[in-house]
Amino acid sequence: MEQKKVKQPLEKTLEQFKALDEKITHYYSVIGLADWDQKVMAPKKGRRVFARAVGTLRTEVFKLSVSPEMGELLAVLSSPEYVEELDQITIAKAREYKSYYEKAKSIPADLYQEYSMLTGQANDAWEDAREANDFAKFQPYLEKIVDYKRKFAEIYGYEDHPYDALLDEFEPGLTVKILDPLFAKLRKTSVDLLNRIQKNGKRPNDHFLSQPFSVAKQKEFNRYILPIIGFDMMAGRLDETIHPFEQTINIGDVRLTTKYIEDNVCSAIFSTIHEAGHGMYEQHINPDFEESVLQSGASFGIHESQSRFLENMVGRSKEFWSYFYPTLQKFFPEQLENVSLDEFYRAVNTVEPSLIRIEADELTYNLHIMLRYEIEKALIAGEIEVKDLPIIWNQKMHDYLGVTPATDLEGVLQDVHWSYGDIGYFPSYSLGNLYAAQILRTIQKQLPDFPKLIESGRFDVIQGWLKENVHQYGKLYTPNDLIVKVTGEELNADYLVEYLEEKYAEIYEL
Amino acid sequence: MEQKKVKQPLEKTLEQFKALDEKITHYYSVIGLADWDQKVMAPKKGRRVFARAVGTLRTEVFKLSVSPEMGELLAVLSSPEYVEELDQITIAKAREYKSYYEKAKSIPADLYQEYSMLTGQANDAWEDAREANDFAKFQPYLEKIVDYKRKFAEIYGYEDHPYDALLDEFEPGLTVKILDPLFAKLRKTSVDLLNRIQKNGKRPNDHFLSQPFSVAKQKEFNRYILPIIGFDMMAGRLDETIHPFEQTINIGDVRLTTKYIEDNVCSAIFSTIHEAGHGMYEQHINPDFEESVLQSGASFGIHESQSRFLENMVGRSKEFWSYFYPTLQKFFPEQLENVSLDEFYRAVNTVEPSLIRIEADELTYNLHIMLRYEIEKALIAGEIEVKDLPIIWNQKMHDYLGVTPATDLEGVLQDVHWSYGDIGYFPSYSLGNLYAAQILRTIQKQLPDFPKLIESGRFDVIQGWLKENVHQYGKLYTPNDLIVKVTGEELNADYLVEYLEEKYAEIYEL
Repeated sequence: MEQKKVKQPLEKTLEQFKALDEKITHYYSVIGLADWDQKVMAPKKGRRVFARAVGTLRTEVFKLSVSPEMGELLAVLSSPEYVEELDQITIAKAREYKSYYEKAKSIPADLYQEYSMLTGQANDAWEDAREANDFAKFQPYLEKIVDYKRKFAEIYGYEDHPYDALLDEFEPGLTVKILDPLFAKLRKTSVDLLNRIQKNGKRPNDHFLSQPFSVAKQKEFNRYILPIIGFDMMAGRLDETIHPFEQTINIGDVRLTTKYIEDNVCSAIFSTIHEAGHGMYEQHINPDFEESVLQSGASFGIHESQSRFLENMVGRSKEFWSYFYPTLQKFFPEQLENVSLDEFYRAVNTVEPSLIRIEADELTYNLHIMLRYEIEKALIAGEIEVKDLPIIWNQKMHDYLGVTPATDLEGVLQDVHWSYGDIGYFPSYSLGNLYAAQILRTIQKQLPDFPKLIESGRFDVIQGWLKENVHQYGKLYTPNDLIVKVTGEELNADYLVEYLEEKYAEIYEL
Repeated sequence: MEQKKVKQPLEKTLEQFKALDEKITHYYSVIGLADWDQKVMAPKKGRRVFARAVGTLRTEVFKLSVSPEMGELLAVLSSPEYVEELDQITIAKAREYKSYYEKAKSIPADLYQEYSMLTGQANDAWEDAREANDFAKFQPYLEKIVDYKRKFAEIYGYEDHPYDALLDEFEPGLTVKILDPLFAKLRKTSVDLLNRIQKNGKRPNDHFLSQPFSVAKQKEFNRYILPIIGFDMMAGRLDETIHPFEQTINIGDVRLTTKYIEDNVCSAIFSTIHEAGHGMYEQHINPDFEESVLQSGASFGIHESQSRFLENMVGRSKEFWSYFYPTLQKFFPEQLENVSLDEFYRAVNTVEPSLIRIEADELTYNLHIMLRYEIEKALIAGEIEVKDLPIIWNQKMHDYLGVTPATDLEGVLQDVHWSYGDIGYFPSYSLGNLYAAQILRTIQKQLPDFPKLIESGRFDVIQGWLKENVHQYGKLYTPNDLIVKVTGEELNADYLVEYLEEKYAEIYEL
C-alpha cells in the first residue's frame, strides 16, 4: 500500500508534465510558423500589428514555462524519492525546462521588463547607428545591455568567470575555462596558416564566379541539389529571404530560406546547403520526441556543426563538386564551360581576409568569432568599456586578419546580435566548426570510403550515419555528453586545426 | 461621490473587456495565418501534427471566449445601469461576444464534445463516401449531425422555425419567415428565366475560353488586374490553392488564393476577382477596429455580397471587359485576337444548367442554393429523412434545373459543408447575391456614371463608395441594420430579379 501511494502522484505528475510540455511545444510551433511567415511571406502593412498578436502568444507561453504548475511539476520530478524512477526522456525534458525556469524565475519581474524594453529600443538604435555609420548612437544602449547582462550573470551564478553564466544560455555547460585554450590554439594556427597562404601568393582565380547567372536557373539548381543531399521536400520547403535561415515548424515541416544574387552563383548554393544541414538535423529527430521540448538540436553549437559540416566539409570538398559540377556546368554552360573542376573547387575555397563576418571564408571566419568572444568576455568581466569598442575592434581586426575597417559599419556595427542582448551567442559559430571537424574525423574512421560516398552522390549513407549518431537524439543529451558519445572524447581543437592545415596546404600548395 | 463609485468599476470593466477582446483577436489572427499556411504553403508531412498545435490554440481561445471573466464582463456591460453609458463600439463588441458566449454556454459540455468528435469522423466518412461514390457511407453520420443540430436549435431557442436558430449563427437575425418569400420569388423568376433562355436557343459560343492558356501568363494577368481593381498588394498577397478562399490575418494582411487551370482562362480570373471582393472589404475596415472582434465583415451574407458584387456585377459586365479585354488579348493574342469584346462578354455570361454548385453560372447558382436551403429546413423540421436525400436532391435538380445527377458524387455528396456540421450556411451565398443587387441599385442612384467608371477603370471611385458606405463599419452593425443604412430598406428580392432579367434579356435577346 505504501508503494502505491508513492506511485500514484508520480504517474499523475508525468501525465501533467507531458501535457504541459506538449502545450508549450504547440505554442512554439505556431510562433515559429509566424516568425517564418513574417520574414518570408507577410505583406508589409500587416507586420506591425501581427507582431503584437505573436507577442500575445509569446507572453502566454512564457507564463506557462514559469507557471506555478511548472514549478510544482519540476519540484516533484527533481525530488530524490522519484528521480530514480524516471526514464531518460523525462529526465532530459525536466532538465531543459528546469534550466529555463530557474533562470527566468531568478530575474525579478521589473528588472526583466526594463531589460525587454531596452532591447527593443537598442535594436532601433543599432539600426539608426548603422544608418548614420556612427557607433556613438548605439553606445549608450549597448552600455546598458552590458550592465544588465553583468547583473544577470551575477544572478544566474557561475564558478569561475561571469561570462560562463551567459555562455550557458547558448551552449549548456560551456565555460571560459574550456573555451580559452580551444580558441587560443585555433587562433594561433589560423593566423599562422593565413600568413603562409598570403605569403605564397597563389590566390585562386575566382572571377568567373561573379558573372551574371540567371536567378531562375539558380533557383532550379538549388531545388535540384536539395533532395539529392538528403533534404526531404515532402517535409520541408525552400524559399527566399534577405538573411537566410532555417525554421522548424515540426519534424515534418522544416523550412529553409536562401538568397539569390545574380552575379554570385555560389552565395545561394552554399546558403542552401548550410541551411539544409540545420534542416536535416531537425527532420531526423526521433519522431517519439515530436510535440516535446526534445524536438530540436542539442545546442546552438551542435546545430551549427551540422550546417557547417554540410556546407564546408561536404559542400566545399572536391568530391562534392566532382559529383555536382558537371550539372552546374550544364545549367550555366556560357559561364562555366571553360572552367575546370579543379579551378572551380579552388575558387570556392579562396581564402581572403575581409571585414564582414558573414562574408568570411572557412579559415578566417573563426578569427572574426574569436575577436567577438574576447570582446564579450572582457566587457562582462568589466575589463574594457563599451566606448572603446571601435578602437579595440579595429586593432584586433588588424592583428588577426591584417585588415582595418574604415568605418563602424564595416566594423563594430556589423552584427545585430548585441542589439538583441545576445551576448554569449557568437562562440556557437566556431563551436560548430570545432564539433564538425571532430565529427568528421569519427565519420572518416567509421565510413572509410567517405570521400567516395560524396563523389558518387551517396549522401543518403552520410546522412544516415548522422541521423543514427547525432540527429535522432534531439535534445536528449547535453552537447558535451553528445560529442563524447559520438566521438569518444570531449571537444578538442586538434581536429579542426588538422583539417584546415590539410585542406589549405593542398589548395595553396603550402 | 456616489457617481464616482459607479463609474470606477465601469472603466475597469471596459479596460478588461478591451484587453480580453484584443487577446482573443490576436489568437484568431495567428490561427488564421496557420489555416492559410496549411492550405497554401505547408509541406504534407507536417500537417497532421501541426493541426494538433493549432487545435491547442483553438481550445485556448474557446476557453477565453466562454471564461468566467468573459461572463462577468458581459454581465456588467449588459446591466441596465451601465448600458446607456456605453459607446456604440463597445455595444457592438459586447453583442458579438454575448451571442457566441450564450450559444456556447447553453450546450452542455459533454454534448458539445460528442458533437465535436462526430464532425471529425463525419468529414472522414464524407471523404470515404465520395471515394466510393456512395451516400450510404455518409448517411449515418449526417443523421447524427442532423439530430445534434435539432437539439442545438431547441437549446438555442427560436420563435417560429427551429432552422431559424441555425440560420442565426451565420446571418444574425435571419429567419425562415424572412427568407421563404425572398427565395420563392427568386426561384420562380430564375426557373422562368432559365426556361426562356433555354428555349430561345441563342447559347453564346464560348469554346474559345477553353483553349490552352499559359499558366505563367494567367498568373501575370491576375496580378496585373488586382491593384487596378483596388486590392492593396502592400496589404495582401495572391497565392494558389485547390479551393480558392480569402483569409484575413489583419487589416494590413489580407490573403487571396486562386486556382489556375490551363484550358480555362476565366476560372482563375473570376476566382481572383471574387476573393478580391472579400479581401477589399477586410482591407477597408476602420483601422480603429483593428485587434478587436469588429475587425471583420458584418455577416457571411454581407461578406458574400462584396465578392459577388465584384465578380458578377462588376467583373462580368461589358464595361469591365471593355476596359480589360484589350489587355487580355495582348496577353493571349493567339487565342483571342479573333474574338470580339462582345463575343467574349457573352461567353463569360453563358447560362447552362449544371450539376455542380461551384461551377454554376450567375443565374442558376441561386437554384443550387435554394435546393439546399429547402432540404436543410425540412431536415431540421423533421419533415424529411436523411436516407431519402439522394432521391429528394435529384428530384429538385430535375425540377429547378432540368438536369439529374447520375451519381451521388455529382449530387448530394458534392459539398463539404454538412460534414463539418455547417447547416444554415448555404443561404449566405444567395443572400450575397440579393444584398449585392440591392447595393448595386443604390450605387447606380448615387453614382449615376457607374458604368462609365468601370469602363474607364475608375475602380477607386467604386471601392471608395463601398468603403465609405459598407466596408469601414466591419461588424459595427448587424447585417439588417447595415443594409437598411446603406440602401434605405430591408432586404428585397426585387433588385436581384430585375438585375437578372435585364442582364439576360440583353445577352440572350429575350
